[in-house]
Amino acid sequence: MKFGGTSVADLDRIRNAAGRVQREVAAGHEVAVVVSAMSGVTNQLVEWCAALSPLHDAREYDAVVATGEQVTSGLMAIALQSLGVEARSWTGWQAGVQTDGAHGKARIASVDGGLLLAAMAAGQVPVVAGFQGLGPEQRITTLGRGGSDTSAVALAAALRADRCDIYTDVDGVYTTDPRITARARKLDKIAYEEMLELASVGAKVLQTRSVELAMKERVRVQVLSSFADVPGTLVVDEDEIVEQAMVSGIAYSRDEAKITLRHVPDRPGVAAAIFGPLSEAQVNVDMIVQNVSADGTTDMTFTVSRTDLPRVRAVLAEHREAIGSNTVLTDPDVAKISVVGVGMRSHAGVANIMFSTLAGKGINIQVISTSEIKVSVLIAAEYTELAVRALHTAYGLDAA
Amino acid sequence: MKFGGTSVADLDRIRNAAGRVQREVAAGHEVAVVVSAMSGVTNQLVEWCAALSPLHDAREYDAVVATGEQVTSGLMAIALQSLGVEARSWTGWQAGVQTDGAHGKARIASVDGGLLLAAMAAGQVPVVAGFQGLGPEQRITTLGRGGSDTSAVALAAALRADRCDIYTDVDGVYTTDPRITARARKLDKIAYEEMLELASVGAKVLQTRSVELAMKERVRVQVLSSFADVPGTLVVDEDEIVEQAMVSGIAYSRDEAKITLRHVPDRPGVAAAIFGPLSEAQVNVDMIVQNVSADGTTDMTFTVSRTDLPRVRAVLAEHREAIGSNTVLTDPDVAKISVVGVGMRSHAGVANIMFSTLAGKGINIQVISTSEIKVSVLIAAEYTELAVRALHTAYGLDAA
Repeated sequence: MKFGGTSVADLDRIRNAAGRVQREVAAGHEVAVVVSAMSGVTNQLVEWCAALSPLHDAREYDAVVATGEQVTSGLMAIALQSLGVEARSWTGWQAGVQTDGAHGKARIASVDGGLLLAAMAAGQVPVVAGFQGLGPEQRITTLGRGGSDTSAVALAAALRADRCDIYTDVDGVYTTDPRITARARKLDKIAYEEMLELASVGAKVLQTRSVELAMKERVRVQVLSSFADVPGTLVVDEDEIVEQAMVSGIAYSRDEAKITLRHVPDRPGVAAAIFGPLSEAQVNVDMIVQNVSADGTTDMTFTVSRTDLPRVRAVLAEHREAIGSNTVLTDPDVAKISVVGVGMRSHAGVANIMFSTLAGKGINIQVISTSEIKVSVLIAAEYTELAVRALHTAYGLDAA
Repeated sequence: MKFGGTSVADLDRIRNAAGRVQREVAAGHEVAVVVSAMSGVTNQLVEWCAALSPLHDAREYDAVVATGEQVTSGLMAIALQSLGVEARSWTGWQAGVQTDGAHGKARIASVDGGLLLAAMAAGQVPVVAGFQGLGPEQRITTLGRGGSDTSAVALAAALRADRCDIYTDVDGVYTTDPRITARARKLDKIAYEEMLELASVGAKVLQTRSVELAMKERVRVQVLSSFADVPGTLVVDEDEIVEQAMVSGIAYSRDEAKITLRHVPDRPGVAAAIFGPLSEAQVNVDMIVQNVSADGTTDMTFTVSRTDLPRVRAVLAEHREAIGSNTVLTDPDVAKISVVGVGMRSHAGVANIMFSTLAGKGINIQVISTSEIKVSVLIAAEYTELAVRALHTAYGLDAA
């Protein structure tokens, strides 16, 4: 059972979370708990580090920031004990969570679950501080923002848990954003790969790395609310999903910007001349489209995160000569709409439903990109809600 | 260099403390730093534990509370680095501070200074989180309130330091409380034993245990202000103090209450009948006076901490029969005045000066107690300032 920052934001919520653990224990389950920092605490600690030095030592940042989860783990253990549940807190280093040395964004290298399993066998609930581990030179590391999800999945794998329940402030994964259409339905189950694709297009329920790890280690993850008593959404292997819909969800992202380079010379190496420097500048390029060559030149269109747009302009200006294009068009008023579903593999015509549905609403598609289980299109941002609602209906996802 | 809570209360003060470390390093000294939690932080953490459960697990309390010093150590390392001083934070467990398992008030069992010495040899300033260590079962322990002083002295001993500088919000040890007389003088040096006696009678500059440890390990301790650039007071072996005054300081404590049991049967075992139950009730009895027996009964007078008075009354009432006295007189309006000095050993008449000085001011002495280097008297609380000032003058302590 993993509780995120909002689920342990104050003492009352810690008590509430402890009550949920107590119920699971009373039902005869063996439980291990992973906790985040109380919400707001991490921000305060990060602020202090940044105020002392904008370029602070990531190793010291980790020593400071990791205390947030340690505090919650101790408080949660006290709350559990006061409910009569035998419990003990564990820091990352105590719990055997080894990471690499990439301070501030470390990756878990191994988890030795031996001590925790022994504690559980003795009837004790371990409460593990998430988001942290032990790196080289006995130093404390943190996994980067949202890393507690990854801690929970890694521990679930090490303990060979039947399930990893991630308690959060939403009650599951929906077919689309319920703020856009009241017809959005909570999914009972979703496949790992679908969850990954949804996360990558803006549905931030779980940290991407935690889903990757769950998929690799075959950990069954449940996303559920710590504030409501309803079942959540199970993230599982697609084989576990008996009735596969063609499409499981519609996602959107407004954090997009489109760049078009006109009249780029159509010769080998031109793509490298454009995307090499962008990559070096840490710009993540998403969709890329190159039109058919007409007059020895071509148009190259690609999308980036909207916040990267100023950086992209600077990089392209700097490398204008090597690229050979004088005309750079940028459009920040675009949105990416994606339909996602492992069912696509066995259903033909999924993309076509998307194109005709959008055409029927008079929405122009600017860029198309596809993967095995996803079709994404770029459209004008103002059509976002209209497009999502129309596609939700077209793919038969609307709630009854 | 050890910095207390007020010396690292906020980022500006942490920067200020880092500046002091930088100056020592620039002067060619090898420095290790010990830090307390930012003032207020520990109280917040303690409050949270208490709010979740009044009888919380001391092991979890330690896991929660020890984070305060860990945060400061990381922030201090960042502040030092930003001043160009190579530095690294160390938690208690990283620094090799082993303690017993008395969670919440653990005692340091051993300090393995090897890793810190290696870091220092490589030109790095270790910044150690005070107040904490590693106990049995790899669990984090804390040393109890004020324990960072003890951490600093223990580390100074392990590192064979030339000196242990304790930075605090006062600039040294004074002949008496400067709030009572402007003639109080800062002492250049004071002997360990004098410091212990002063601490035990209310001059809370250093934690008692840290002074005991310094005396045992012969660590030269300097108490000085982190806010002023003046030398502090050296706490050293008495052999180091060349010109020993008869009396080094006058201390007082208003936290006293006097209890008199009238007409106690004067027979063997009566003292045990009184003080046994008080000891079991965790009441610390200080001065004890038994008058000469007159009619087969005697009067027994003793003092306790004023906050313990209700408990004392309850215990005495409960054991009235065994004690055999029906009359219990209590007086909470008393103060203890002490003159302290290792010079007493070689000077006769120290106590007499005290008695005649107080008599000269018309102050009645209610109880007297002496040790090798201390004479204490109990007087009515309203005379406290008058007595301290008169004695300060009488023993030649007044500033010129």
